[in-house]
Amino acid sequence: MSNSAASKVLSELREYDRELQLLKHGCAVLQWDQETYMPPAAAEERAEQLGVFETLVHDRIADDRLGELLELAGASPNNLLGSEDLPYRDRALIRLLFREHLKARRVPRDLVGRLARAASAGQTAWRAARAEDDFAAFKPQLEELVALAQERAECLGYEEHPYDALLDQYEPHMTTAEVSRVFHELEQRLVPLVSRIAEAPQLDDTFLYREFPEDIQETFGARVLREIGWPSNRGRLDISTHPFTIGLGRDDVRITTRYDRGFFNAAFFSMLHEAGHGLYELGFADEIRGSMLADGTSLGIHESQSRFWENVVGRSRAFWKRYYPALQSAFPTALAEIDYEAFYRAINKVRPSLIRVEADEVTYSLHVILRFRLETALFGGDLASAELPDAWREESRRLLGVVPESDAEGVLQDVHWSMGGFGYFPTYALGNLFAAQFTEALEAELGPLAPLLERGEFAEILAWLRQRIHAHGSARTATELVSDITGRNLEGEPFMRYLHAKFGEIYALD
Amino acid sequence: MSNSAASKVLSELREYDRELQLLKHGCAVLQWDQETYMPPAAAEERAEQLGVFETLVHDRIADDRLGELLELAGASPNNLLGSEDLPYRDRALIRLLFREHLKARRVPRDLVGRLARAASAGQTAWRAARAEDDFAAFKPQLEELVALAQERAECLGYEEHPYDALLDQYEPHMTTAEVSRVFHELEQRLVPLVSRIAEAPQLDDTFLYREFPEDIQETFGARVLREIGWPSNRGRLDISTHPFTIGLGRDDVRITTRYDRGFFNAAFFSMLHEAGHGLYELGFADEIRGSMLADGTSLGIHESQSRFWENVVGRSRAFWKRYYPALQSAFPTALAEIDYEAFYRAINKVRPSLIRVEADEVTYSLHVILRFRLETALFGGDLASAELPDAWREESRRLLGVVPESDAEGVLQDVHWSMGGFGYFPTYALGNLFAAQFTEALEAELGPLAPLLERGEFAEILAWLRQRIHAHGSARTATELVSDITGRNLEGEPFMRYLHAKFGEIYALD
Repeated sequence: MSNSAASKVLSELREYDRELQLLKHGCAVLQWDQETYMPPAAAEERAEQLGVFETLVHDRIADDRLGELLELAGASPNNLLGSEDLPYRDRALIRLLFREHLKARRVPRDLVGRLARAASAGQTAWRAARAEDDFAAFKPQLEELVALAQERAECLGYEEHPYDALLDQYEPHMTTAEVSRVFHELEQRLVPLVSRIAEAPQLDDTFLYREFPEDIQETFGARVLREIGWPSNRGRLDISTHPFTIGLGRDDVRITTRYDRGFFNAAFFSMLHEAGHGLYELGFADEIRGSMLADGTSLGIHESQSRFWENVVGRSRAFWKRYYPALQSAFPTALAEIDYEAFYRAINKVRPSLIRVEADEVTYSLHVILRFRLETALFGGDLASAELPDAWREESRRLLGVVPESDAEGVLQDVHWSMGGFGYFPTYALGNLFAAQFTEALEAELGPLAPLLERGEFAEILAWLRQRIHAHGSARTATELVSDITGRNLEGEPFMRYLHAKFGEIYALD
Repeated sequence: MSNSAASKVLSELREYDRELQLLKHGCAVLQWDQETYMPPAAAEERAEQLGVFETLVHDRIADDRLGELLELAGASPNNLLGSEDLPYRDRALIRLLFREHLKARRVPRDLVGRLARAASAGQTAWRAARAEDDFAAFKPQLEELVALAQERAECLGYEEHPYDALLDQYEPHMTTAEVSRVFHELEQRLVPLVSRIAEAPQLDDTFLYREFPEDIQETFGARVLREIGWPSNRGRLDISTHPFTIGLGRDDVRITTRYDRGFFNAAFFSMLHEAGHGLYELGFADEIRGSMLADGTSLGIHESQSRFWENVVGRSRAFWKRYYPALQSAFPTALAEIDYEAFYRAINKVRPSLIRVEADEVTYSLHVILRFRLETALFGGDLASAELPDAWREESRRLLGVVPESDAEGVLQDVHWSMGGFGYFPTYALGNLFAAQFTEALEAELGPLAPLLERGEFAEILAWLRQRIHAHGSARTATELVSDITGRNLEGEPFMRYLHAKFGEIYALD
């Protein structure tokens, strides 16, 4: 193909992509509104509106013309990156578009519809089953969701394990074998650490459950967000039932939180968490803004950014050395006699518990490993849906040393499966691992984090994250990013070093 | 066509229409967000997002398939209603769809693009010109906007006057001749009434400009909205620079206001005004919900509903007999020594002024007549854009007895022309006339309004409006509605009777 023909193809591809992203961001506005300000009676029609818009997006991705353009750019199912002569960003865009195009072509519309209906019915059944602690009531829907996910995996194709196809939706290019390897290593190190902490003297965190007026929580949280670099002219902070982050455009990323008057951690750490996601979405390089490349490269990398700000920064001693005096003045009734050291320890209290979303930094990944084991067994044919409750109890005892007395606190606790979201959970723990790997690289370049945090030099930290991670968007895969930044592969060791240093000190392990 | 074939065509048309309305409502979500919560830096990309969505809507309306379906339903450019065998609502739907389809086909895409660009450039130029009081700076854009509107009128076609085609966009089926007739009659009656009021002793309204804390304005306003029937589960009240009403779905209509701490009227009466628009949009019959029929039948009818609640209800003595004690307690500092009668008179003070949006009930329509005269002269070829400032001053002297010293307060005061919105203004005054006609019909059936308002029987009033006006949506044209309800045509007499009764008493005219 001549240079001018190639450049014409590329420019048509970019234009095609641009309209696609504008459409997707339009859908995002509807979704954001649905979770924040929409009047309750509008829910049913909003689902129909979103259905129409999402169908438009799907049809554009599946369109013959996109397939033709990708082929003209030299790409094929065996060479997703297209012609080697093309600039690196264009090749990355071609890969992304081709992956989406193939998925949309390989999964029949009929199956897409059945998945959507099963997810909708599944959520309703799950909510009722959880409320009644009645797994049997959810089992038929769960079985159908598993079967449909299996069917989807077969349509998408995989090399070794059907779960590869599911995982790839959330963590592109990651394999079941790779996650198994890392999670196995992690489990071997985490379980003994949790035991040693359990034997140490326990910490008091009861004062975190005193009265924290919502408006003061909001003012304090907004101040911190501003200081770490959250830009109010390009983002918003709103309230929703479940905190989330959503990108509505290159200069429009919104996060939400929920205030709990009777528990300090709930809103504050979710704000830092979502701001971490949001800062990633706001940090894409100008060259890729508005294109499909301007997106998180994987959920694991996304989660590394949220966990970095929530835990590595927000649950550090240095951070609170800076902010605790202000926090104490903001909540004099709750915190007057609590000193900074007691507060720092309380927000880092470790306690093996039943519920993932309430877990501390040490036990959290074990909750994820539990789910990963059950999911891979389900899709590897080693476990039936009916056996899940027992398998859950067994894994929970083995990994966390606690056994749920009810299924509501066990196998029914998460929404993910009821939506057909198999393959999603591992990304939460991968986020912890990536965050620790990135933090070591950051410290190697900028020096120790603690003094930067204590001096509030967030701009320097954010600039590093932007340059090394955010700017690339999806132009680098998760594996490429980790390799670029750390010179190594995904590994559990840096995360374990982080945990041992931090919690060894807190619990005086030795 | 066989019955089953006809019913198949109708069901495909309804499905086509349903998706179209879902798309339009999706656009409306983006527009609402743009004016309320969107971060400022997102403005440019939001315009692009809306451009993509609006093009989708336009393409669906212009699509060949829609034309085929309308023809199969027996419709043609000479018989917009389709086959006479069809139910009345289906015929109305066919007419609406066909009108939109013809407009979309008759106006070339190229012209649509030029209009959009001229409107965008026009607004920018107008804003600067108004700020600098420099008509010459806006003149080139204005000339282009007039030329493009003329071109559009020629594409759309008209019987007598090019202005017919422009007017028809906002007030379907209304003609320039009809509006001229009614406005002439109105002018003859209004000008002497304004003179007589000017000679009467003037009212004090200075206390309306005291301090009215925003949060108390909001609480008081929200209470009144709730009591007149605004449903919080199907609507919202937000804040925006310019108050507006927007429908986002059959159970999702949102209004906005803007609080001025130093002027009571600004927020309160705009809330009632927008709630009037909103209640119309929330009142469409179940049978037409979600279809193109579920829309205001004309801007004049829409305005009749907003003016009814703002003026006929909200500026009545009976309404404040009910609410003034609560208002006085809400704002004790501002209103402590002001009695109910003084307040009622103050909110109805008449004073010929330069600015339309600040005008009282008596002079308001004269501002509209002024614009109508200039617009029809422009498009009738009797006036050039360059002559507008002088013509404005002349008409203002003749109609209102006041002459603007600057063009900023004269010909440059409104945004409409800078957006190419020629033909829009008359609907504001038509709203006053329709409202007065409907009010007389309502009183003939329910008895005098005053005691209903004093007793707070808003539900009865709203039920009447729903049944007689709202429920029909666009299934009845404005003319049909007026004829159904009053047995007469559009006329100025009821409005004049209303003004004479109300202001004759306030100003003790005889």
